[in-house]
Amino acid sequence: MNETTTLSIQALYERVEALLIRAGLDATQASALARVIVAGERDACKSHGIYRIEGVLRTLKAGKVVADAMPELIGDEATAIVRVDAKGGFANPAFELALPHLVARARSHGVAALVVNDCVHFSALWPEVEALTDQGLAALAMCPSYATVAPTGGNSPLLGTNPLAFGWPRIDNPPYVFDFATSVAARGEIELYRRAGKPLPEGWAIDAGGAPTADPTAALAGAMLPFGGHKGSAIGTMIELLAGILIGDLTSQGALEVLGSTTLAPRHGELVLAFSPQAFAAGRPGDPFARAEMLFEAIVGQGARLPSQRRFRARAVAEKDGITLTSAEIELLDTLLSRGLDAV
Amino acid sequence: MNETTTLSIQALYERVEALLIRAGLDATQASALARVIVAGERDACKSHGIYRIEGVLRTLKAGKVVADAMPELIGDEATAIVRVDAKGGFANPAFELALPHLVARARSHGVAALVVNDCVHFSALWPEVEALTDQGLAALAMCPSYATVAPTGGNSPLLGTNPLAFGWPRIDNPPYVFDFATSVAARGEIELYRRAGKPLPEGWAIDAGGAPTADPTAALAGAMLPFGGHKGSAIGTMIELLAGILIGDLTSQGALEVLGSTTLAPRHGELVLAFSPQAFAAGRPGDPFARAEMLFEAIVGQGARLPSQRRFRARAVAEKDGITLTSAEIELLDTLLSRGLDAV
Repeated sequence: MNETTTLSIQALYERVEALLIRAGLDATQASALARVIVAGERDACKSHGIYRIEGVLRTLKAGKVVADAMPELIGDEATAIVRVDAKGGFANPAFELALPHLVARARSHGVAALVVNDCVHFSALWPEVEALTDQGLAALAMCPSYATVAPTGGNSPLLGTNPLAFGWPRIDNPPYVFDFATSVAARGEIELYRRAGKPLPEGWAIDAGGAPTADPTAALAGAMLPFGGHKGSAIGTMIELLAGILIGDLTSQGALEVLGSTTLAPRHGELVLAFSPQAFAAGRPGDPFARAEMLFEAIVGQGARLPSQRRFRARAVAEKDGITLTSAEIELLDTLLSRGLDAV
Repeated sequence: MNETTTLSIQALYERVEALLIRAGLDATQASALARVIVAGERDACKSHGIYRIEGVLRTLKAGKVVADAMPELIGDEATAIVRVDAKGGFANPAFELALPHLVARARSHGVAALVVNDCVHFSALWPEVEALTDQGLAALAMCPSYATVAPTGGNSPLLGTNPLAFGWPRIDNPPYVFDFATSVAARGEIELYRRAGKPLPEGWAIDAGGAPTADPTAALAGAMLPFGGHKGSAIGTMIELLAGILIGDLTSQGALEVLGSTTLAPRHGELVLAFSPQAFAAGRPGDPFARAEMLFEAIVGQGARLPSQRRFRARAVAEKDGITLTSAEIELLDTLLSRGLDAV
């Protein structure tokens, strides 16, 4: 049986929100989470879609997230830093609360930083950067995760997969957006190789003894490697420094120590920088948005691809035709709604 | 004959400054350039040392840099952006002029951006980030160069080698600093393979037809490739957007079109972000500088290396014992001093 069900984006949102509330999250937490989970499904980004709900519920069941956390702005209006304390809740409602303040601060100061502290993080960073490109701002976002990546030349987990995301607003197109792990692969990809019984590509991981390995099980017990050798390792380290230590929040090693597991969502902080092209390009020749289009045309014109295009194509389909789920996925949603935390 | 001459850092500085003035640069331009060139020699970073002087002189002779440019601050004190117009001179005196303003702005606003516009760029970015770490600030610097790198999946030069540099201040140690090209190799490295008659490692370059090549000559006529595949390509593109288009200055393609050559120093802009750990970590547990030391200890403790250590070791030697040059290098300096622009 390959039955499928097609739901509107709004209908799936309501279903996900309802089951998150059923599981014990309050409305603030549940609605923000439902938005990013449904955005993942909408964009055919399955690894960040409803697949993530069970992890959210496991984290909740383990008492590792505050179900009714009410994020709080901690502001000093004179600076270019907007700070929000997630109060041990998920990052997403904290980001939503802070977003208009970050936008205003970036417009008035040219550049502004959002610090999210004490948040539980389980989603991609592209929802954050796209929320800013939607406002005509460029954005750079980063956060630690938990220690699963060895620095280049090292032998054991210390860095996280430390995602880095960037967005540039476009007028008549979806934004230029990238969002990737600074490890060569995401942990989920290694898990897929393990399930398929396939060897890993060279350079992805080392075993618990620090030796290169193609065995997914040995890799999961060892450490992943940074992308791009020592350069990627340096960028991963920078993310520990800027989005962990600079903002007074946990590093990936600290997050793992607190959590004691890589199967739950980690608690740490997040850093988002927002840039106003109007402010930065003021008084200079050329329109920055028009000039960026010329760069994108030149990239595409030589056969290279812009990142996130597959996601945007899926989004256009979902916005028109809805989101199609398999019967197994519908069954999962039904089970999670009826059984709540007992389902995980 | 392998005669060498050892000079104090100050003596070499005076020699380099004198020959730059002899070549026609004014004191503002010459002194800032001499500082970064001698810093390269001091750090045994030969590719950015006196080897660069001939390129500076060729650029001057070709009329591609303003010899007596007086950089000018263009300020709006209310924002977090410090802007300096290099007026077609080199980037370094413009950066020196703007530095105290960037430091003050980062301290008062928490984060601040320096935009350098209309500068000729020939040096590394680590002098910029180290000038900020010297003030207890973290720093991220980037700039385009000229189009010599194809985006991943593309077939011709569009991006520059687009360096990315980051620094974190340390109390009793030289700072944590990385500074690398976002191409897999620097153009100078390919030139060294060509001179040695050796094939390039796989993945470094494509030929003029867009096909992978190990032939250095074909690579120099074709395009270099980004480091780390599509991730490095995305970061290189981000640098075009942030340090080119955002700041209203040339992209790498624009810089190449204006210059018409890859043998002279390109004219474009530069973006430097400065972060105050005091401001960002205010009210949060732990001291950011002490916490960063724990991260660095963990990296070194597992046998991995911190970037720039070779440079800092060379610096310590040079500060104690001076800088040793070969007789050929001394002869080069003498020739450049006596013949000025006629030597290039």
